[in-house]
Amino acid sequence: MTTTAESGPRAGATACLRLEDLHDSVTDPLSDSMNLLNEVAQRHPEALSFAAGRPSGAFFETEQVHRHLRTFCAHLGGAGGRPDEEVRRTLFQYGRTKGVIHDLVARNLAVDEDFEPDPEAVVVTVGCQEAMFLVLRALRTGPRDAVLAVAPTYVGFNGAARLADMPVLPVRSGDDGVDLDDLVRTVRRAREEGLRPRACYVIPDFSNPLGISLATDTRRRLLDLAAEHDLLLLEDNPYGLFPAKGSRRPTLKSLDTGRRVVYLGSFAKTVMPGARVGFVVADQEVTDADGRRVGLLADQLAKVKSMLTVNTPPLAQAVVAGSLLENGHSLVRATAREAELYRGNLHVLLRGLEERFPPGSGVSWNTPDGGFFLVLTVPFRTDDALLEHSARRHRVIWTPMHHFYAGRPHSNQIRLSFSTLRPEEIRTGLDRLAGLVREQRARAGRPTTGTLPHPNP
Amino acid sequence: MTTTAESGPRAGATACLRLEDLHDSVTDPLSDSMNLLNEVAQRHPEALSFAAGRPSGAFFETEQVHRHLRTFCAHLGGAGGRPDEEVRRTLFQYGRTKGVIHDLVARNLAVDEDFEPDPEAVVVTVGCQEAMFLVLRALRTGPRDAVLAVAPTYVGFNGAARLADMPVLPVRSGDDGVDLDDLVRTVRRAREEGLRPRACYVIPDFSNPLGISLATDTRRRLLDLAAEHDLLLLEDNPYGLFPAKGSRRPTLKSLDTGRRVVYLGSFAKTVMPGARVGFVVADQEVTDADGRRVGLLADQLAKVKSMLTVNTPPLAQAVVAGSLLENGHSLVRATAREAELYRGNLHVLLRGLEERFPPGSGVSWNTPDGGFFLVLTVPFRTDDALLEHSARRHRVIWTPMHHFYAGRPHSNQIRLSFSTLRPEEIRTGLDRLAGLVREQRARAGRPTTGTLPHPNP
Repeated sequence: MTTTAESGPRAGATACLRLEDLHDSVTDPLSDSMNLLNEVAQRHPEALSFAAGRPSGAFFETEQVHRHLRTFCAHLGGAGGRPDEEVRRTLFQYGRTKGVIHDLVARNLAVDEDFEPDPEAVVVTVGCQEAMFLVLRALRTGPRDAVLAVAPTYVGFNGAARLADMPVLPVRSGDDGVDLDDLVRTVRRAREEGLRPRACYVIPDFSNPLGISLATDTRRRLLDLAAEHDLLLLEDNPYGLFPAKGSRRPTLKSLDTGRRVVYLGSFAKTVMPGARVGFVVADQEVTDADGRRVGLLADQLAKVKSMLTVNTPPLAQAVVAGSLLENGHSLVRATAREAELYRGNLHVLLRGLEERFPPGSGVSWNTPDGGFFLVLTVPFRTDDALLEHSARRHRVIWTPMHHFYAGRPHSNQIRLSFSTLRPEEIRTGLDRLAGLVREQRARAGRPTTGTLPHPNP
Repeated sequence: MTTTAESGPRAGATACLRLEDLHDSVTDPLSDSMNLLNEVAQRHPEALSFAAGRPSGAFFETEQVHRHLRTFCAHLGGAGGRPDEEVRRTLFQYGRTKGVIHDLVARNLAVDEDFEPDPEAVVVTVGCQEAMFLVLRALRTGPRDAVLAVAPTYVGFNGAARLADMPVLPVRSGDDGVDLDDLVRTVRRAREEGLRPRACYVIPDFSNPLGISLATDTRRRLLDLAAEHDLLLLEDNPYGLFPAKGSRRPTLKSLDTGRRVVYLGSFAKTVMPGARVGFVVADQEVTDADGRRVGLLADQLAKVKSMLTVNTPPLAQAVVAGSLLENGHSLVRATAREAELYRGNLHVLLRGLEERFPPGSGVSWNTPDGGFFLVLTVPFRTDDALLEHSARRHRVIWTPMHHFYAGRPHSNQIRLSFSTLRPEEIRTGLDRLAGLVREQRARAGRPTTGTLPHPNP
């Protein structure tokens, strides 16, 4: 099939696009962050990686997928009493925009998180990332709308806000996980500048990237402030099931008597990332211009979703549903082995850091009480060039913390993820990291021209 | 877990949102169209539906899913020589943003569509809907950017444009499937008004909703005009594999020597909707401010995708890949039975219409040469109220055509889909439709107060 010279497009008319003719998000440094964080490990397969924020694959077996699917089909055909044709329709065809496992998600939250939403308030999404975008897209009516986020912030949240053309106003984390005074200051300043702060994004449990959690009392005060200043709280909870010690704290949503909290959930860290299933609980009432109730925020999000992805793949939902059904709707039960693994890994990491970086070494870190992440402070500048050098020369990968502060090119901190490495790999990785620290301190000891010590990448 | 009166949010501070504080898209009539088209059949299970634009489920078997998964895993482990752990990682973990079956998609296009894209130009998406949004979001830099679309237009395209805040400028379909003079007029008028038309959306094969196709010569002229007026063409091809007679025409992309065409593909109508897997081929070069090549448009779309859904579920991609692998990469081969079924259904529909609506009946229709859809013109007004009446009183469902013209409340046409009904259901459905037509014509015969004849819904 060729085009003749006569009828083909004229020579020189080949389409070519300039970056400046594409949406800002593609040239925003944070889009590079997303790719860096997703793909850095693939670029350096020989290096040990403390970068990947993914769950352990130690217990993945392909037969799980088949079993989960069969479990869900049996559930549909059995308890629901549906004929085979309807089971096939659920699995193969387009389905309900808000999802086909909303009731199971609601039941899971009742069992594991002590709150049971109306299943109609649940929208099942393509990972938590789509849930964030749906909420931000719905809340953004014009250039005045803004969203707050506790900084450092999960990169994907900044990405979703960028796509929705919504500015993110950072709120200091401080030692409590959120600096409530700074939150109030930020809201007031934004309003003075003519902005309309709509919501504040927060990861109350074992946050990404800091690994710290909000005390229960801080949670209550945050809810009070949200009511006082008419903000929604966007509670993201991907790691809450993985405490290292002690009991889990109540989610904001379970304490929420004023429907202030939009709850963002993910099955990526509990069932598997490869299903790409997340959800949002949005039980806020929505009214029309005459004050008449027109449904829940979830119903409005579903409209946005119908224009974005139509449905979350029923096939993927079915696999997640199978896992829930096989574990009495409890992901605490489903992930007991993983939780033990992460606890053990954090212990190994903390011991390993103590052994390699004694007081006075200039290296310090926080002590998370769960989750996947810990933050290390080092006596030199950390940026993408140093990461590249570390991966190639020292064969160890980590995440430069500046990626979690939109707009900063570097910092002197790095995020260490301890969810995917084996204990012996953690120890070897720390040996390599200690080598990098030694090298960088030696360079810092040399006379410089006034700039921060920095390797030749 | 209860909140004490002292610490809980103050009474009366319950969050409540007003529709006007949410993005316009949720109150746009077209969001109701999306839901209507997706869920109308669920609201009237007793009615026969000519509305659903979904593929036939006649050959769906749940074992297919298991077989496809095993085929893809064997392919990964076998030909690729990857160890089990890597197969599990591909299936369970986060993966490549542009997808894990891009090479199979490229091979499929070579086999079935006579063009073989660079696999790096392929982005695998959550259905074609996400592909549309990615392209529009990337092309929309500000309020001047607009997109053209042949009208009547697939509702989901208007939805994606609405979400991206991008105006859609309609181009007349005319008898050729696109009125090229009107296209040029629309581009010129838009530029005079200060808009920047970036692309034109078109379904060249068996379009939704009209069911008509562009002649090969029209395709060539459309490509020439796109080059002359510096437009991209967004070619959407969900139904191309289902001709009713004669041979298939070349896609725009296969005729495209100037990289003018962004090709939108879907596996929803060929493998299954429940996987929600589509793709976009975007092989346009992108340059920076200095004219340096920075990659393909596909790479920029991947950045947007990483902020929107991160990955298309690898599990769902794996099922689609299995189907491709089992059929020598050919979906023509994979869908031979379905194509035969659709051909037979169209024949039954055309014969049934001839029998029930002879010349002079005031009812006419077009004769598609393939696809899922046909358009009926009737001598009365068709709107959502009449559809509701038809579903309840006559137990037959169809799609009012005004949904495909953004902003119109009614028309005198309806879309009939013939992909999901059995031949005897088509005949019964047409009997019911004839009953509706008789009733409406009788009403029209009565004296009215000057308004169009209309039922009491």
